[in-house]
Amino acid sequence: MSAPAPRMRWWGWGEDGHDEPLSDAARALLAEQLGPLPAGRRDPVALGDVRLPAPALPAAARERLAAIVGDEYLRDDRLARVTHAAGRGYHDLVRLRAGDAAAAPDAVVYPADAEQVAAVLRACAQEQVAVVPFGGGTSVVGGVEPHRGRFAAVVALDLARLDRLVAADPVSLTATVQAGMTGPAFEAALAERGLTLGHFPQSFEFSTVGGWVATRSAGQASTGYGRIDALVVALRVVTPSGEIATRAVPATAAGPSLRELLVGSEGTLGVIVEVTLRVRPAPAVRRYEAFSLPRLDAGVEAFRALVQAGAAPDVARLSDPVETCVSLAMAGDGLSTRALGAYLRARGHGDGCLAIAGWEGGDDAALRRRRAAGARVLRAHGALALGTPVGRAWEHGRFHAPYLRDELLALGVMVETLETATTWDRLPELHGAVVAALDGALRGRGTPPVVMGHVSHVYRVGASLYFTFVARQQEGAELSQWHAAKAAASDAILAHGGTITHHHAVGRDHAPWLGGEVGELGIELLRAAKATLDPAGIMNPGKLLDPAPLPGAGPS
Amino acid sequence: MSAPAPRMRWWGWGEDGHDEPLSDAARALLAEQLGPLPAGRRDPVALGDVRLPAPALPAAARERLAAIVGDEYLRDDRLARVTHAAGRGYHDLVRLRAGDAAAAPDAVVYPADAEQVAAVLRACAQEQVAVVPFGGGTSVVGGVEPHRGRFAAVVALDLARLDRLVAADPVSLTATVQAGMTGPAFEAALAERGLTLGHFPQSFEFSTVGGWVATRSAGQASTGYGRIDALVVALRVVTPSGEIATRAVPATAAGPSLRELLVGSEGTLGVIVEVTLRVRPAPAVRRYEAFSLPRLDAGVEAFRALVQAGAAPDVARLSDPVETCVSLAMAGDGLSTRALGAYLRARGHGDGCLAIAGWEGGDDAALRRRRAAGARVLRAHGALALGTPVGRAWEHGRFHAPYLRDELLALGVMVETLETATTWDRLPELHGAVVAALDGALRGRGTPPVVMGHVSHVYRVGASLYFTFVARQQEGAELSQWHAAKAAASDAILAHGGTITHHHAVGRDHAPWLGGEVGELGIELLRAAKATLDPAGIMNPGKLLDPAPLPGAGPS
Repeated sequence: MSAPAPRMRWWGWGEDGHDEPLSDAARALLAEQLGPLPAGRRDPVALGDVRLPAPALPAAARERLAAIVGDEYLRDDRLARVTHAAGRGYHDLVRLRAGDAAAAPDAVVYPADAEQVAAVLRACAQEQVAVVPFGGGTSVVGGVEPHRGRFAAVVALDLARLDRLVAADPVSLTATVQAGMTGPAFEAALAERGLTLGHFPQSFEFSTVGGWVATRSAGQASTGYGRIDALVVALRVVTPSGEIATRAVPATAAGPSLRELLVGSEGTLGVIVEVTLRVRPAPAVRRYEAFSLPRLDAGVEAFRALVQAGAAPDVARLSDPVETCVSLAMAGDGLSTRALGAYLRARGHGDGCLAIAGWEGGDDAALRRRRAAGARVLRAHGALALGTPVGRAWEHGRFHAPYLRDELLALGVMVETLETATTWDRLPELHGAVVAALDGALRGRGTPPVVMGHVSHVYRVGASLYFTFVARQQEGAELSQWHAAKAAASDAILAHGGTITHHHAVGRDHAPWLGGEVGELGIELLRAAKATLDPAGIMNPGKLLDPAPLPGAGPS
Repeated sequence: MSAPAPRMRWWGWGEDGHDEPLSDAARALLAEQLGPLPAGRRDPVALGDVRLPAPALPAAARERLAAIVGDEYLRDDRLARVTHAAGRGYHDLVRLRAGDAAAAPDAVVYPADAEQVAAVLRACAQEQVAVVPFGGGTSVVGGVEPHRGRFAAVVALDLARLDRLVAADPVSLTATVQAGMTGPAFEAALAERGLTLGHFPQSFEFSTVGGWVATRSAGQASTGYGRIDALVVALRVVTPSGEIATRAVPATAAGPSLRELLVGSEGTLGVIVEVTLRVRPAPAVRRYEAFSLPRLDAGVEAFRALVQAGAAPDVARLSDPVETCVSLAMAGDGLSTRALGAYLRARGHGDGCLAIAGWEGGDDAALRRRRAAGARVLRAHGALALGTPVGRAWEHGRFHAPYLRDELLALGVMVETLETATTWDRLPELHGAVVAALDGALRGRGTPPVVMGHVSHVYRVGASLYFTFVARQQEGAELSQWHAAKAAASDAILAHGGTITHHHAVGRDHAPWLGGEVGELGIELLRAAKATLDPAGIMNPGKLLDPAPLPGAGPS
């Protein structure tokens, strides 16, 4: 037995060899929109050239941890440390590709079970070693980047060995699962029993159940299946002060919800080791299709009408005109895309918005009824049905964007995403404000961006907004360029009634804005919870409550 | 201007003169089942004979509070103190009717707004006076009974003047409302705008929005509309440490949910002053009807199938055979009830279970479709449709049980309710365990009970169970008789996987069992939240975290 191998290449997304080269058309579009890109590729340094601090874990602590997990499950070699040095945010990849792994943990431990997790936390609290719980390592908000805080050393606690489906109950439709199980492994185990969770964040291939719960994540089908916080029936968390487990009941009036205090705790209160989730019968049929809405405001009204009428599809996504244009252009193969563009212009949708609607269900008839009800609402708002090929293309590519990002970085292009949510009455205002903030911040630095957005995850009272922006990288100032854009967008979000994050979590990157969202007293309340469960303060320092400085902050 | 008049008679439910005399048939059934009842009526003492401690509020504190709210809004007369001396649980009524108001607050203050609430809390913290937030005063778990804790005096903070609809947004379908607005007033204000909240606890006529949120309540139509915790978008809470307000967004990934820490806080962390709730278009049509299921297990399976197929009605209630029998017997007017009984026996439903299904919706066609889908599932489990008269009778009487309780008390009959929830796989076991516990505890005291239960509030993973039990009162030992039954049921609930409460909240009565549900570390976490928001510990002592002794506890 030995420690699990890294699931992703150390400098980017996914496995080595999985590349997504850009079409010539896409490269031409980028250059046209962003200005001239560098001539050569900017490829990552070799692993051996990565700059890594000397491991600082005191020998006594190392020995004690090795005794708990076993020698082979404590790793402090270069690959283990580099693969646990950062998440998969834009700033992470910029630094890793450039050979900067300054934040690498001093060691990585792989406990076998909840008891070993508890022993590791006890040892670290006594030895004054910080601990970063690590699931899939896919955080895009600095959530797993090690910060020593006031401690001399920091270890990553990798949950890869807690990878088992504990129980599935077909009567109550619940599944109990260990936190380190990845999305595909969990769904495969459920599928054997005819079940599904239906949680598909873009990170699905690599992220873990525990990570989803720790970050309060939303998936692409969460409009239908519910966000992860709506799917958690109970959870079991090991903290430095002991274990806390909530009761698996459908609902309760027994005081404040401790479950909701632990969901979203992002490794700062303890380590989520086991979760009981609501599951459903796996869908026998699914239909993903595309519609075009004549304008963004019509599309937003259509989506609001859908969800408020109880007719929302399980996947509901509405691109703004810029994202619609870029999607069609990137789709590549010239003829059919051009034909679609011409068709839309002819029908008055030249500035239209692409919508993806996905229905899943137990049988054809039920799915057809739901689809018909949804399509009726969409048509009443001027939608044109574009059929299933575009919908299937979206479904096929739903997890591809992070691979594409690696390629864009090699071409000298910054690409970043951020997201928020607000009530329907404020949605158009918030959309405009974030676009303007990003455009202003990047244009002001001489790197005008393309900013595109989409509405997704619709709720009766509102929806989320997800933004992607690309710009020429400011060579040598990539991080301060990123920080300027991030700060401008975050300020705009809070000023216009949004939440600082709807599905990426707080991590380190959103922490400076959390006080603006929950107030100083709210922060104190969270600090009190932390002081109770983690009195030594070893759990994931620099995140959520006590933000470490952001990459690129300060004079640029 | 003067302080609002009490909404309920001081010794019972509702207004004076609203009585629910029992039919002769019902009295005969009671005597047959419970044994001989006392010959005379046991009516409440006169208000002037109620034993009330001398008000203990120090003059300086009294003056300061009067200066904040105005002289006429600080009351310490007999009626004000007695009407704030207890909630409306069985033990409350036993004591009030007997003239025992030992727990009465020293004074009642009626602040006009959030600012006055804040000033009252500041003054009370400095003057060391305990504060009991008081909405409708309908708690059945000792939630509003004043306990001085370690303080010399205690005041009730009555929210009756915070009774305004602040805003209603027809776009996002939200309504912002002050905490002291009662159910009927809130629904009437929404109805003027074509909206509804759809929250109808049995206390609806007198309870308040703030009370619902503070106690995490469920209403009779919560299967369709969602529990109150699912309807809260945001809330504003005034605490001794300052105000805390959560952001009105549809969903967020911004860390642990502070909203969910404040919902269900039962006045122990602060005073909920304002709530933003999800509302819906008021239903244009509704249909309440009854079905008979051949046995309880078939009924439970039918309800599970309904909700897991997404076909649950908005009101879903399934009586066990005992509750079914009693309901039919109490319904009174001999002929039609006897005919129904004969029909059910003839169809093999002699030991059947009555189900109430209520559908509400925007138009007839949609309602008919939903009803047909639901009825199909029920029929597949052997249900007989009994039509709308029985359903309408239930709807008509949905808020009557507490009035009836007053009459039963006058006849020397103990009547109490309690409730829990668990996952479907454990539901039958939990039902049997609670019935056995109640039966054993009361039979052992020579007062064999009738214990009846129903399933309601169905969820995909489980459902709630609600029990009503009646027994002859043990004269002179009413409280220890109650305590014995309550303790036995509560122990059984925790031992068999239930939550200690699904919709009555914790209050004082369930507090001894909260640690068994959330664990010692969970309790510590709640204590830490309280220490942050209420460092002096003035907020509602004796509830949730630090239970005061229960009525009737100790040697009997």
